[in-house]
Amino acid sequence: MTDRSHAERLDAEDPLAAFRERFAIHDPETIYLDGNSLGRLPLATRGRLTELTDAWGSALVRGWHDWIDLPERLGDLLADAVLGARPGEVIVTDSTTVNLFKLAAAVLDTRTGAIVTDSENFPTDRYVLDGLSRGHGRELRVFDTDPLNGPQAEDVKRACQAGDVAFVSLSHVAYRSGALADMEQIAAAAAPAPVIWDLSHSAGAVPVELEQRGVALAVGCTYKYLNAGPGAPAFLYVRTELQERLRTPIQGWFGQRHQFVMERPYDPASGVRRFLAGTPPILALAGVEEGAKLIAEAGAGNLRDKAAALSELIVAIHDERLAQLGFRLGSPRDPARRGAHVSLAHDDAWAICRALIERAKVVPDFRTPDSIRLGVPPLYTRFTDVYDALDRLATLVERGDHREVDSGPLRVT
Amino acid sequence: MTDRSHAERLDAEDPLAAFRERFAIHDPETIYLDGNSLGRLPLATRGRLTELTDAWGSALVRGWHDWIDLPERLGDLLADAVLGARPGEVIVTDSTTVNLFKLAAAVLDTRTGAIVTDSENFPTDRYVLDGLSRGHGRELRVFDTDPLNGPQAEDVKRACQAGDVAFVSLSHVAYRSGALADMEQIAAAAAPAPVIWDLSHSAGAVPVELEQRGVALAVGCTYKYLNAGPGAPAFLYVRTELQERLRTPIQGWFGQRHQFVMERPYDPASGVRRFLAGTPPILALAGVEEGAKLIAEAGAGNLRDKAAALSELIVAIHDERLAQLGFRLGSPRDPARRGAHVSLAHDDAWAICRALIERAKVVPDFRTPDSIRLGVPPLYTRFTDVYDALDRLATLVERGDHREVDSGPLRVT
Repeated sequence: MTDRSHAERLDAEDPLAAFRERFAIHDPETIYLDGNSLGRLPLATRGRLTELTDAWGSALVRGWHDWIDLPERLGDLLADAVLGARPGEVIVTDSTTVNLFKLAAAVLDTRTGAIVTDSENFPTDRYVLDGLSRGHGRELRVFDTDPLNGPQAEDVKRACQAGDVAFVSLSHVAYRSGALADMEQIAAAAAPAPVIWDLSHSAGAVPVELEQRGVALAVGCTYKYLNAGPGAPAFLYVRTELQERLRTPIQGWFGQRHQFVMERPYDPASGVRRFLAGTPPILALAGVEEGAKLIAEAGAGNLRDKAAALSELIVAIHDERLAQLGFRLGSPRDPARRGAHVSLAHDDAWAICRALIERAKVVPDFRTPDSIRLGVPPLYTRFTDVYDALDRLATLVERGDHREVDSGPLRVT
Repeated sequence: MTDRSHAERLDAEDPLAAFRERFAIHDPETIYLDGNSLGRLPLATRGRLTELTDAWGSALVRGWHDWIDLPERLGDLLADAVLGARPGEVIVTDSTTVNLFKLAAAVLDTRTGAIVTDSENFPTDRYVLDGLSRGHGRELRVFDTDPLNGPQAEDVKRACQAGDVAFVSLSHVAYRSGALADMEQIAAAAAPAPVIWDLSHSAGAVPVELEQRGVALAVGCTYKYLNAGPGAPAFLYVRTELQERLRTPIQGWFGQRHQFVMERPYDPASGVRRFLAGTPPILALAGVEEGAKLIAEAGAGNLRDKAAALSELIVAIHDERLAQLGFRLGSPRDPARRGAHVSLAHDDAWAICRALIERAKVVPDFRTPDSIRLGVPPLYTRFTDVYDALDRLATLVERGDHREVDSGPLRVT
């Protein structure tokens, strides 16, 4: 299974193969396996940015006729193309951090009890919850999750039974292991407390289906699998039935019912728009539209199938060639329980990552303490990319090349 | 004084005249007097956007080596070029609304008492403070300000004497009248409560001099006089001496001391960086750099002098020609007490605004209930622009053309 011709066959049969041509590929030698951190640049985004910049230059303030509802229009696009949500349930605005803060604080306003999260949640999520716990005088209950398999319903149930709970906040796909949480089972285990999901590592990589799965609240970033650009604004989802009950802690003029009748006291807008705060960064929204369109065109089923097949290839090569070199699989074995990245753990992970980048033209991503993350965004990753990257990885470790790089201090890659 | 040749002479003698050529001017017929709402596009911003987009496409995640400290680097640039603050006191991030929320909540953490603001503060500021008052169970004490002259030190003193005060939050330049507040007198009147200033309508228009004036805390937008683009990220200033005492309510990974050592509990970064939250929108930061550079190149003294001279021309033409047509000056008469916009009040203000845009190719800005705001950003506004715009305005009202437009419902212009 793990010879190159097998990967070539998979590429030849790939219904999504042509999507790679829709992205900027500057250096074909380099194999980029970090789209789970920052997605590639869609070629159409350049044109969209130019259009928006032209509109700023020519229409000036009148451009706001078109821009004023962009956070809602892009939200509806994501709802339909990526999130499986209904119109009027999603906005694109602020960062994931700020959006999680807004939703979590809004729930704290309506419910007593602890804030529950797990030990494997993404750092910024844990920091936000820690800050809310201090500010609101609530217990922050962090339950331990198996780093490999992510949070399980029984863990959530146990944590919630330990005392009154305001809400549970978890990542849909774990940032290190790529483990995919079962949203429905976990929601049932947490009930009546709502779950706020962070979809940053799942949106655009695996089906999310918020409506069908009865999800209450969610946030997520657009710069990973949605390819919207570095730091592009994040999304925020509130299920229709909950919208009128929740109120943002950050009351701003974009969330006011009558934004331009400036005499009135604050009155939250109807619907999810009430979670807007200040003026949204229009140029940074350019990439969200093009990124979401590509996902819609590819289709959620195709994306899921290809991501599973790509990550299965990593697992197969791991078993055949990498396990004997000191690697351990840091992700679930069952492809149905994984997102679109696979973690390989190794005692020399940091030095290996450095050597891969500097000597082998492979860009993975390192996560403390010992994870090499290999992201395989299905829109532009080829099976031969996976084969070649792991071949270079194996050769490098077989030769001991990673022992020769200066492993230096930790830094962002 | 108010014939066209006078305006032509002023243009000929204007040391900043050449800066107009550094901006995109798509339709020379249209006179744009709404740069106080959305500034023009600097030509250099196009190139900077292309560079950043190229870096995303080619360096991909490695682009973060350059981007990671952009909020602080741009903050230092603004500190030096525009705000008169010291290095390490300013960051560019989030919106003005979110930044005000963060600073105000941080102060509430350290001080008891009421939140004090005035009736003329910008709506989003009042909404933020109202939300904090609810969330923190604090009195929101709104004192009445003379709409024409803005908040005065004696008003602030009286409001602060009415009971314990956590902080005072005011706009440096009033959004409707353009009245410029005396930051030093007001700070003395508020003491020991700190004042949080919103500099949105002053930064880039009048000297701000935060260090020299002993200002404690401030926020402001970059898309007005700083020409950074629609919804470009805002700035946040914390005086060095206060930084270690304040803690953001929105704890995110960009404000964490060890951002990429993900195992650790939240520990706020040193300095103003602790007020960063989520991942900043890199493409939207492109305009901040070019906008700030232009301000720096022009020089604060030149900008102040030209803004005063432009607004003096509006006042002179008002007195000679507009007062007899039902206009009233809605801004202070003393140019030293004004920002870079002048408000003209009129009973038919809304219909006149519509007619100006639709029939006279003049773009002003309407603010409820009866204000026509004329912004004169000194970098690109000519004296003949002011003359011609007010000539068209007077002619239009003399003829009664504004009675013929459909004055329709309120909308953003």
